[in-house]
Amino acid sequence: MSPRKTLNIGLVGCGFMGRAHSSAFLRVNQFFDCDAQPVLKAVCARNPAAAEAFAANWGYQTFTTDWRDLVARRDIDLIDIASPNDTHAEIAIAAAEAGKMVMCEKPLGRNVAETRKIVAAVEAAGRANMVWYNYRRIPAVSLARRLIDEGKLGRVFHYRAKFLQDWTISADLPQGGAGAWRLDASVAGSGVAGDLLAHCIDTAMWLNGPIDTVTAMTETFVRERTHAATGKRQEVTIDDAAAFLARFANRSLATFEATRYARGHKAQYTFEINGETASISWDLHDLNRLQYFDHRDEDQVRGWRSLHVTDSGHPYMKRWWVPGLQIGYEHSFVHQVADFLESLSSGEPASPTFREAMATDLVTDAVLRSARSGRWEEVER
Amino acid sequence: MSPRKTLNIGLVGCGFMGRAHSSAFLRVNQFFDCDAQPVLKAVCARNPAAAEAFAANWGYQTFTTDWRDLVARRDIDLIDIASPNDTHAEIAIAAAEAGKMVMCEKPLGRNVAETRKIVAAVEAAGRANMVWYNYRRIPAVSLARRLIDEGKLGRVFHYRAKFLQDWTISADLPQGGAGAWRLDASVAGSGVAGDLLAHCIDTAMWLNGPIDTVTAMTETFVRERTHAATGKRQEVTIDDAAAFLARFANRSLATFEATRYARGHKAQYTFEINGETASISWDLHDLNRLQYFDHRDEDQVRGWRSLHVTDSGHPYMKRWWVPGLQIGYEHSFVHQVADFLESLSSGEPASPTFREAMATDLVTDAVLRSARSGRWEEVER
Amino acid sequence: MSPRKTLNIGLVGCGFMGRAHSSAFLRVNQFFDCDAQPVLKAVCARNPAAAEAFAANWGYQTFTTDWRDLVARRDIDLIDIASPNDTHAEIAIAAAEAGKMVMCEKPLGRNVAETRKIVAAVEAAGRANMVWYNYRRIPAVSLARRLIDEGKLGRVFHYRAKFLQDWTISADLPQGGAGAWRLDASVAGSGVAGDLLAHCIDTAMWLNGPIDTVTAMTETFVRERTHAATGKRQEVTIDDAAAFLARFANRSLATFEATRYARGHKAQYTFEINGETASISWDLHDLNRLQYFDHRDEDQVRGWRSLHVTDSGHPYMKRWWVPGLQIGYEHSFVHQVADFLESLSSGEPASPTFREAMATDLVTDAVLRSARSGRWEEVER
Amino acid sequence: MSPRKTLNIGLVGCGFMGRAHSSAFLRVNQFFDCDAQPVLKAVCARNPAAAEAFAANWGYQTFTTDWRDLVARRDIDLIDIASPNDTHAEIAIAAAEAGKMVMCEKPLGRNVAETRKIVAAVEAAGRANMVWYNYRRIPAVSLARRLIDEGKLGRVFHYRAKFLQDWTISADLPQGGAGAWRLDASVAGSGVAGDLLAHCIDTAMWLNGPIDTVTAMTETFVRERTHAATGKRQEVTIDDAAAFLARFANRSLATFEATRYARGHKAQYTFEINGETASISWDLHDLNRLQYFDHRDEDQVRGWRSLHVTDSGHPYMKRWWVPGLQIGYEHSFVHQVADFLESLSSGEPASPTFREAMATDLVTDAVLRSARSGRWEEVER
Repeated sequence: MSPRKTLNIGLVGCGFMGRAHSSAFLRVNQFFDCDAQPVLKAVCARNPAAAEAFAANWGYQTFTTDWRDLVARRDIDLIDIASPNDTHAEIAIAAAEAGKMVMCEKPLGRNVAETRKIVAAVEAAGRANMVWYNYRRIPAVSLARRLIDEGKLGRVFHYRAKFLQDWTISADLPQGGAGAWRLDASVAGSGVAGDLLAHCIDTAMWLNGPIDTVTAMTETFVRERTHAATGKRQEVTIDDAAAFLARFANRSLATFEATRYARGHKAQYTFEINGETASISWDLHDLNRLQYFDHRDEDQVRGWRSLHVTDSGHPYMKRWWVPGLQIGYEHSFVHQVADFLESLSSGEPASPTFREAMATDLVTDAVLRSARSGRWEEVER
Repeated sequence: MSPRKTLNIGLVGCGFMGRAHSSAFLRVNQFFDCDAQPVLKAVCARNPAAAEAFAANWGYQTFTTDWRDLVARRDIDLIDIASPNDTHAEIAIAAAEAGKMVMCEKPLGRNVAETRKIVAAVEAAGRANMVWYNYRRIPAVSLARRLIDEGKLGRVFHYRAKFLQDWTISADLPQGGAGAWRLDASVAGSGVAGDLLAHCIDTAMWLNGPIDTVTAMTETFVRERTHAATGKRQEVTIDDAAAFLARFANRSLATFEATRYARGHKAQYTFEINGETASISWDLHDLNRLQYFDHRDEDQVRGWRSLHVTDSGHPYMKRWWVPGLQIGYEHSFVHQVADFLESLSSGEPASPTFREAMATDLVTDAVLRSARSGRWEEVER
Repeated sequence: MSPRKTLNIGLVGCGFMGRAHSSAFLRVNQFFDCDAQPVLKAVCARNPAAAEAFAANWGYQTFTTDWRDLVARRDIDLIDIASPNDTHAEIAIAAAEAGKMVMCEKPLGRNVAETRKIVAAVEAAGRANMVWYNYRRIPAVSLARRLIDEGKLGRVFHYRAKFLQDWTISADLPQGGAGAWRLDASVAGSGVAGDLLAHCIDTAMWLNGPIDTVTAMTETFVRERTHAATGKRQEVTIDDAAAFLARFANRSLATFEATRYARGHKAQYTFEINGETASISWDLHDLNRLQYFDHRDEDQVRGWRSLHVTDSGHPYMKRWWVPGLQIGYEHSFVHQVADFLESLSSGEPASPTFREAMATDLVTDAVLRSARSGRWEEVER
Repeated sequence: MSPRKTLNIGLVGCGFMGRAHSSAFLRVNQFFDCDAQPVLKAVCARNPAAAEAFAANWGYQTFTTDWRDLVARRDIDLIDIASPNDTHAEIAIAAAEAGKMVMCEKPLGRNVAETRKIVAAVEAAGRANMVWYNYRRIPAVSLARRLIDEGKLGRVFHYRAKFLQDWTISADLPQGGAGAWRLDASVAGSGVAGDLLAHCIDTAMWLNGPIDTVTAMTETFVRERTHAATGKRQEVTIDDAAAFLARFANRSLATFEATRYARGHKAQYTFEINGETASISWDLHDLNRLQYFDHRDEDQVRGWRSLHVTDSGHPYMKRWWVPGLQIGYEHSFVHQVADFLESLSSGEPASPTFREAMATDLVTDAVLRSARSGRWEEVER
């Protein structure tokens, strides 16, 4: 057993995603035997106390309140961006220009212009890069992809996805500030479109190919909120809910929906694909299961199969416990790091690269354009 | 116990729906104690052998191959139309003009022009009339309406419905003829729009009020089929699949979808409604259950409740067996007849009347218009 | 189409089961094309007003308050016993001695001595006979039997069944009288053992063969109740709950349980069978579904299949509606009558005959003996 | 933030449980802010290469092949026993006598005599101790306990539990050796009784109090296997399956079952409790959910609630991600360590202590005695 190469990480952002990434960097080689070992060199957050506490908690060697410190350090190999959306472009571009590998939370930019700039810079740098569309690496979702690649579905007729939450229904919820930047369009870029639909779109294109055209609607149910920092009432400009119809390049039809106003759902991300010979569906609220229907089964015992995706033959699962024992949400991040480390060894880019992730932002953009125009809009390429 | 008044029925059509209606007329007073007793006077079908066998099976006193015979008979009170869509207008109008009560399968006409004529004639006649949107009378669906009427949901944000089937995927399936008239646009008027979406739309407006605007897409996956009667290849002109986005008058948003190309689903009609304080969902494949989420529940025990709608306090259920024992699809027709008979006693029209049912055809029309125009279309009133 | 032979029915009992049987006799030939047609000749009930109303409701030609009238009539072919358990023996024996065909609700007798006498008399008469273990004829349960007969399960290791209700939890519920004779041991013979376990045992032996030995416990949770008729407090002597372990002749192991004290369950009859190559489970609360697991499936898509038992290839279902549309509890009785009529044509007895049904009473008897002795008890043959 | 005290760990065993414990020690303070910090000082395994690799993987400072080294070290505070059952007694007693804190996998001993000796030694030592009945700490199970403590269930009538696996069905599976010691009675003490029933019993008594008496059966389906090490055929002496009926001290009735021959189930541990006013059920295969039925709900909306136990108000969940996102099996071990560390601060023992865990071994013993005697057996105290 030769010692592993180190991969020195500089993390920007110590919120929910900063925790999920840190956990993944620390655990990956306890379960996946990769050639490289992430080392938590430094973390950056605007609030120094928060940065210090985060560093202590996760074992980062140092902390800073200026992300430029991370980019400037010679001993940092990879900048991981887990800060709010309005910071992505500046940090990613600087990191790329400094020759760092880059990872970034989704969506890349607040709008297509930002996204294109980010991708151009990262591609010019030519270093390994990846966007955290972690749901691809939930074993049940990875299994869905495998089954499709094996041709089990045949021609696809339908795709449908939704991402339902209910956390912004109360009109008393403030917007803006550290805790609620996702409600502030100037920071987030959009509401559920970039936050939730983006996940639906990324998975959809990964499983079913490019989307050509869309027609969409968006709605803001609560039109005015108090700003968390200023205490002032101000207009809400994000989309609280969004839905769209789409046509894929493979001629299949789709419906997509995302909202933060679906009472009873905390993070119900679901998708279903109907093919000529088989269908698949999945629900994040039961993330270890994949529903599978195979029309080629003998007539009288044909039915939807509830696959408990915990067997050693299922994607990633051999590395964890024993068949029947479930894993959770956070494991998808471990898998994503494992695949990234594997990509460094193989030279084959880990998916989705920034370029691949840009395709999702382009669909989101078409959705928002259509919601304004009231027409079908083409997705840019 | 005074003897019941008779209600003499003349049925047109002896297919699937003819059977369901006949069963309901025969059973209604074994379980519901109504003032009137349907009497199966006569049945009409184009094929005399089929008509005779049907009459023998269900106890119709006579049969005929010409529906005009039924309309002409003095001893028939009610004409029930269960024949293909291209016959609805002519029969309904003649029956109305003859002063008969009329019941009709959905959709009313093949297009809005037909529907308007039918409704005008029936309303001019001023007799009791009803369209067989039977799903309203499944106890779980009736319970949904009751919960909404009680105000349990609060302001509604979202409605979503779909009706998924898979029976036309095979390209070898013929179109046209007695067995496959639903694939022939000249007979059916449309494909899934009038057949399946119509059910979704009727329930939706019954539960959530009028729909204002829609944007839609339709698709024909198999473009050419052999005609069942002529053996010739011909273009398929129905919509195999349809989906639309909608805005209700109450400002809630909706997605609707219907298809006959969703492998794994035979008759999966589902809907979900998300309100500010509660949500509801239902699935025809588990028709005795209603899913209910109430946000006012104590935090730690808040969850989706699976209501097994078989208790004596649930709509219609006191009349059947004992709590816990399920009923089936066909019982919804019994309930609809019971409500119709009750309406004759009370003078309060049984819902949906022809006028109410026309609202559904108007939405379907807007959907088909939008699928052609690529724009949002207003629903006519 | 030659006219059907008539089968003249005399029904004893007009409670819940009387309704279910009557419904089945009336409907059978609307859906199943049998050689014989049941004719509702006469019904008997102790209360004349109830008997008259029941006759009017279901179309019985006459009614009586003395079952001996039915047995004495030459024009009655079959006596159907749906009255409380304490009447079964006397009526069945008299009917048999009068040369009638006999059908009887379960359990046959209040105890093994009664059951043996009944079976001896009916067998001596040599006429067609059947006991209403209707759950065998729910399509999903019949499908389970078919899959087992096809050898899909291989060697069976485990069987487990339970029947959970909650209707007697309240200590205020009276015992005895017309509405509550199931709580009166002198009428019912036993509590849940004969009422609920009997169903579990019948299905189990039908699917998995004879039971050799059992060890059991019973409990009476509410020890004293007011008698419905006398208003006096008296001891409760039935078993409120019963559970037993069993060994089948095929060496498989079993657990059985029945209770009326399981809050949240109205009629949750479930069973599961685990074989070497496949497993099956079923739940009366979702009676149209059968769960099926086949170990021979390809590894990565191996899972429990939810069979929606509504396809035309499923037992009995071709006769009803179209695939995807559910039937209910009462249809099992229609199927049982259809099979009985078929048996009259074929000469092959319809299952379970009185002799076959006796096997269930013998297991129930061993269960009650074991509950008293605290030991394993052999099942008599 | 004062620095945490260290708690130096010496782990014995580097199999499945060794991994689960190590993961928990490492993660606990990343999510739970405890006063003490576990430090992985040393690991012991018989195979030196395995021990070395394990130490490298998890960050143990040293490794050894002799557990006595760990007990002898002054700088180790706690001995954690995760080795096969036949080693528990010797190690636990030595560790206790050396004044160490002790944690041990379940069951404690291979038989009651061993268990009693272990408990006597550990209690004499007077140091903190805990047995790894980790399922108590799955949030849904902890929530069940909380609801019971709040009195939501009222008087309990029924308890039922089962633990179903299918991994030993193949007769080709060897017994004995490192990989299959669970099939070797001389090492494991018993088969499913100590391995799987033990979990069911522990949870049951934690939720519902002591068990008084049991009647049981066990079975060995495959009677002879090849020994993994010697290659010789030899008799199988473990119990492949076990089931028992029980009476709790609170007069409720129970059924329990465990097997490794239930095709289709990998680790399906389920329990259900029926109380006068509410019922609860749970399934390890959907470990983030708790099913809850409350009879006090309004009639028409009364139903089983599927609680997605991922909200911040649910046990332990505030420490993890955001509502709606699931955790997995391994997190129960983190919770158990967190509770243990908390107990060191509070002085209140973490449950279950060795003494508490002995109660489970006493029930298991009664089960095995009953399986031999064929009678009801009292549980020792």
